[in-house]
Amino acid sequence: MKKPTVIITMGDPSGIGPEIILKALENQKLFEFCRPCISGNIKVLKKTARDMFLAHNLEEIKIHEINEKQAGIIPVINSGKDIKSWEYGNPSPDTGTNVYSYIKDAIEICMQKKADAIATAPINKTTLKNSGINFNGHTEILAHHTKTKEYAMMMYGKSFSTVLVTIHIPLKNISSSLSIDKIYKKIMLTDFSLKKNFNIKNPSIAVCGLNPHAGEEGMFGDEEELFILPAVKKAKKTGVNIHGPLPPDTVFFHAKKGLYDSVLSMYHDQGLIPFKLLHFENGVNTTLGLPFPRTSVDHGTAYDIAGKNKADPSSMFEAIKNAAIQALNIRIFKKGL
Amino acid sequence: MKKPTVIITMGDPSGIGPEIILKALENQKLFEFCRPCISGNIKVLKKTARDMFLAHNLEEIKIHEINEKQAGIIPVINSGKDIKSWEYGNPSPDTGTNVYSYIKDAIEICMQKKADAIATAPINKTTLKNSGINFNGHTEILAHHTKTKEYAMMMYGKSFSTVLVTIHIPLKNISSSLSIDKIYKKIMLTDFSLKKNFNIKNPSIAVCGLNPHAGEEGMFGDEEELFILPAVKKAKKTGVNIHGPLPPDTVFFHAKKGLYDSVLSMYHDQGLIPFKLLHFENGVNTTLGLPFPRTSVDHGTAYDIAGKNKADPSSMFEAIKNAAIQALNIRIFKKGL
Repeated sequence: MKKPTVIITMGDPSGIGPEIILKALENQKLFEFCRPCISGNIKVLKKTARDMFLAHNLEEIKIHEINEKQAGIIPVINSGKDIKSWEYGNPSPDTGTNVYSYIKDAIEICMQKKADAIATAPINKTTLKNSGINFNGHTEILAHHTKTKEYAMMMYGKSFSTVLVTIHIPLKNISSSLSIDKIYKKIMLTDFSLKKNFNIKNPSIAVCGLNPHAGEEGMFGDEEELFILPAVKKAKKTGVNIHGPLPPDTVFFHAKKGLYDSVLSMYHDQGLIPFKLLHFENGVNTTLGLPFPRTSVDHGTAYDIAGKNKADPSSMFEAIKNAAIQALNIRIFKKGL
Repeated sequence: MKKPTVIITMGDPSGIGPEIILKALENQKLFEFCRPCISGNIKVLKKTARDMFLAHNLEEIKIHEINEKQAGIIPVINSGKDIKSWEYGNPSPDTGTNVYSYIKDAIEICMQKKADAIATAPINKTTLKNSGINFNGHTEILAHHTKTKEYAMMMYGKSFSTVLVTIHIPLKNISSSLSIDKIYKKIMLTDFSLKKNFNIKNPSIAVCGLNPHAGEEGMFGDEEELFILPAVKKAKKTGVNIHGPLPPDTVFFHAKKGLYDSVLSMYHDQGLIPFKLLHFENGVNTTLGLPFPRTSVDHGTAYDIAGKNKADPSSMFEAIKNAAIQALNIRIFKKGL
């Protein structure tokens, strides 16, 4: 079986992206199950390799060469323009435009089926905005350019995975942004993705309640009765192996023990608090619902340590590995195995 | 130094309370650093011991005998009345009245300084209500009978401890129930209790934000700016070693690593999700602010497994041990050591 090609977007050139990509690619295990290819700026990558004493053979290739033999080199699709006054830790006004270009090129390559998956290095929202790029982040860019309407953020780790129903909204607005339909769609997407991208035949999904003790029969809130339970019931009718709404303070312990393949969290910190507690250093953020697998590191650009050879590549390594594994699983799924 | 006397309230006779107390007391280590004494129903305890094949020498004593030599026995203050139609798993209408009596007697003993601390076995809110006892639970009973106004729930475990600002309220009401004063008082109580009950000289306290990324400069909510930061600043002025508001999804990882002695959580699941993930089986619930240490098991009455010799006494063991340790620490604190 041909190894899947994973496009790694370089992320913010002033952040730790280039460093963690090159460090992750020092681990030869990655080449055993994927063909990595970087979408970014080759000058930045070469200088980073020199500065960090990494003996990589980085070589610029064209998109049509992506599936040719690339033994002994790390292929780079040189994207964007030369960055004016590039330096570690200080994004320049045109950084956002370039970062956007690395991502757009990667998307196009995947949509043309010249590559199988994308793993993204970190970008910074403010830096994007300062270049006039009006997207909140990777996910919105990916959804827009692939015309994807139903997507979800999953945090994937060895102990458990969790999918978020709501993400970056104030805690007090969570209740009013929930609906039966919204929760139902996330359940169905999670179920389908666990089968397709993670090769789980009959995935067991836990759904969190919103309130303490999942509302304790309405005593501490009614969103469980109003939104969550109806969505769970609707999904169950279609044959989904679903459980809930469950008390949020014990469900992650049970997921860690292996009772569930994934936990649907109603809000950011409900899922991210337990996830980062166990997977701070090796968690993978993956977007469900896109036409191809997309993974991301679980941290930001870390401008403060950029260029200092201090960045830990564990999360980038896991993101590339996970993108490749998802691409392989999709092939198996499509063959009906 | 005299060992501290810990009164263990028996909890609901139809639940697993009697079983886990007797099982916890099988571990002779407890007797090395405390004198345990049960407040409960001696008949229930004796029958439970027989049913669970536990060779305890349970002996009824009077309150004035509590500090006399009790070698080789487990002393029991026989409290309440005989329970009509007592059976495992099925609380009778007078169960709540009796349960209330075990707790009231324990409080009185501690207030008379005949004992040093209380460790409570689980009770059930509905069972209390069915007997006409209008308290929400242990904490409210303890606060009422000791005339305590400022108190807080702390979850204590080996990895970290967390104190809750709000507890059993719907998620959507959390924001409106926060105030600078409320948060400030919890910080000060946490700081004082860590010094007095846990013998930490200069405790380091982390304060959680309420919103994703602690609001990210107001983008995802403003409670950090409105309530939390002013409370933190006010506490810092008095010399408290305080940090925050911090992003909720990383603070517990850092607390586990040893960066903080305690984390102040804004709501139930913010603290309980990470706590139970690491301490599901051995977590201790302790009430700060009472005139004496009070600990509790971290689980309910578990009517479904009562009488089946299946209950795990780990949390009860930790609760008794922790009550004794707190009592010892208070003695050290009072001596100014």
